[in-house]
Amino acid sequence: MPTTQFLAELPSIAPLDRTLAAALQAKINGKTKPLGALGRLENLALQIGLIQNTLTPRIAQPHILVAAGDHGAAKAGVSAYPQEVTWQMVENFLAGGAAINVLARQAHAQLLIADAGVAHEFGPRAGLIDAKIGAGGTADYLSGPAMSLVQCMDAMQRGAVIVRDLAATGCNTLGFGEMGIGNTASASLLTHCLTGLPLAEVIGRGTGLDDAGLEKKRALLTQALAHWPERNDAPLDVLARFGGFEIALLSGTMLAAAEAKMVLVIDGFIVTSALLVAARIAPEILDYCVFSHCSNEAGHRLQLAWLKGEALLDLGLRLGEGTGAALALPLLDAACAFLNEMASFDSAGVSQA
Amino acid sequence: MPTTQFLAELPSIAPLDRTLAAALQAKINGKTKPLGALGRLENLALQIGLIQNTLTPRIAQPHILVAAGDHGAAKAGVSAYPQEVTWQMVENFLAGGAAINVLARQAHAQLLIADAGVAHEFGPRAGLIDAKIGAGGTADYLSGPAMSLVQCMDAMQRGAVIVRDLAATGCNTLGFGEMGIGNTASASLLTHCLTGLPLAEVIGRGTGLDDAGLEKKRALLTQALAHWPERNDAPLDVLARFGGFEIALLSGTMLAAAEAKMVLVIDGFIVTSALLVAARIAPEILDYCVFSHCSNEAGHRLQLAWLKGEALLDLGLRLGEGTGAALALPLLDAACAFLNEMASFDSAGVSQA
Repeated sequence: MPTTQFLAELPSIAPLDRTLAAALQAKINGKTKPLGALGRLENLALQIGLIQNTLTPRIAQPHILVAAGDHGAAKAGVSAYPQEVTWQMVENFLAGGAAINVLARQAHAQLLIADAGVAHEFGPRAGLIDAKIGAGGTADYLSGPAMSLVQCMDAMQRGAVIVRDLAATGCNTLGFGEMGIGNTASASLLTHCLTGLPLAEVIGRGTGLDDAGLEKKRALLTQALAHWPERNDAPLDVLARFGGFEIALLSGTMLAAAEAKMVLVIDGFIVTSALLVAARIAPEILDYCVFSHCSNEAGHRLQLAWLKGEALLDLGLRLGEGTGAALALPLLDAACAFLNEMASFDSAGVSQA
Repeated sequence: MPTTQFLAELPSIAPLDRTLAAALQAKINGKTKPLGALGRLENLALQIGLIQNTLTPRIAQPHILVAAGDHGAAKAGVSAYPQEVTWQMVENFLAGGAAINVLARQAHAQLLIADAGVAHEFGPRAGLIDAKIGAGGTADYLSGPAMSLVQCMDAMQRGAVIVRDLAATGCNTLGFGEMGIGNTASASLLTHCLTGLPLAEVIGRGTGLDDAGLEKKRALLTQALAHWPERNDAPLDVLARFGGFEIALLSGTMLAAAEAKMVLVIDGFIVTSALLVAARIAPEILDYCVFSHCSNEAGHRLQLAWLKGEALLDLGLRLGEGTGAALALPLLDAACAFLNEMASFDSAGVSQA
């Protein structure tokens, strides 16, 4: 399929319906508290109310989708960990022992694990969505594109399909996470190409590179960029050149989730790079996004500033997996709860200022 | 009772037992995540483990104590709201309609409401702790001390007694909140006297003063200070001069809660002013404190910096009632959960860096 036709057939995202904005704001202002005193929770309540087009929004059946994929460039030394950790961590997800398992449970969110292209044969497994695009992971972008345009479009479509199944569960809130050794490198390249932010500023230590490792990562990514002397910031081209299968899948899922008017809970640096792709295709998606946290990975703060996104949490996390998204879910619940459950000055008989 | 005897009989707080520090850190580092990747959650897990002196800490039966009191100075115009809002909001707490009711429910925390000296006769009421020190609220500190030293000590003792009842419920975590029209003014005076921070910098808009109101508040508090040309930063003297009954009660509760090795969840500007008093009496208390959020009320950020306390949340809240403490509780749960429930590299068979 030509990319123009593919793009035309992607989920179409409605601009946020602001019909209820004034009524929602009046409801917020009428609650028994000084005007604006619940700060960012008030903005959240307004946003979720608008997305759901109701004065009584609620977070229903929240899910967190963790997409996993391997990166050809991992073997060149862009990560502190060996590539096999990707499949080992997928096994850890399936066994319930990873950070995201624990934090999703705490937040009463269901976890979905998708294999978008891990270099490992899991076989049919309960709890694992088979969305494998390439059995060996992406190609090494140091010597060519990470994937073909066909693979890129396939990954996005497989991501979109997941939302169809989700909507049937009554889910209206979807958090995003990822696992893939080497994927901060991929996210750095995507971020540079899609935003124009200087490459050096959006390259970080990932899972924990030392100074020498960081220097090497910078040299390798500069070399990867040099393959394409002609700048091209078309989102699918950038994604195919440097992306991971898991990142492409997440971009497709995000577009479909916003079309379905879900609340999108954005995690850290890699998930935000997937959002950069989606937002270039459909800028309206940003109205549906809640930025859960600001990661310690260099570049995430710059991505957020570029997107004009304000993170809810700033806890020095740099784990991925959707852990920031899970930790922010209680704040979304709290925003809906105060709007639905607090008394008004009138109903409580409290004097106003 | 002379103040020296009173101080000697106050709860005695043990310095944090750090015996398990190395074992806790090793357990944290062995979890399937890059070293340090859970950021502030890792510090929290360590702190709570040390407070509870266990490798398997947990937040049990969390409570939030909201102390309410009236301030003589409120009638001089230090607040945007009339004084009657204090008792009206206590009624709102008892009816379940205030922000803290909603947010405590969300966080599965029990709420305790204490009348430390509201200028209103509630009569015996289910759900209201009668700890009334003065039936009409404090005296106006613009023309004398807010309370006598005897009242001050009485309020602290009544606060300490609450912890005895709490410990019997199995509670090991206590958040603090307050309600009292005019109490940001009181907190500003306490903060200035106990820290030496410039008075003007720790005076804020409270529930929402406009520029003229803020100017008037500054003038009134400068005038209040001028009554005592001789500087005295002894905590009980400062508290008696400028405190609120609710603030004094909270200081006493905090001391007793730390003695009982509870986790103290500190809220915003006013609660932190109560902690400043307690920390001057027993600096060891700070090891037991988690700073839940940074308030938008001018001065709270300065208090936190002075205490070297890092807030977990920064959401632009300025509501009081313990709302920040309630919102942070899920993060404390998450810190314990990752420590107790995540797999280790060994147990999950994941390769290390």
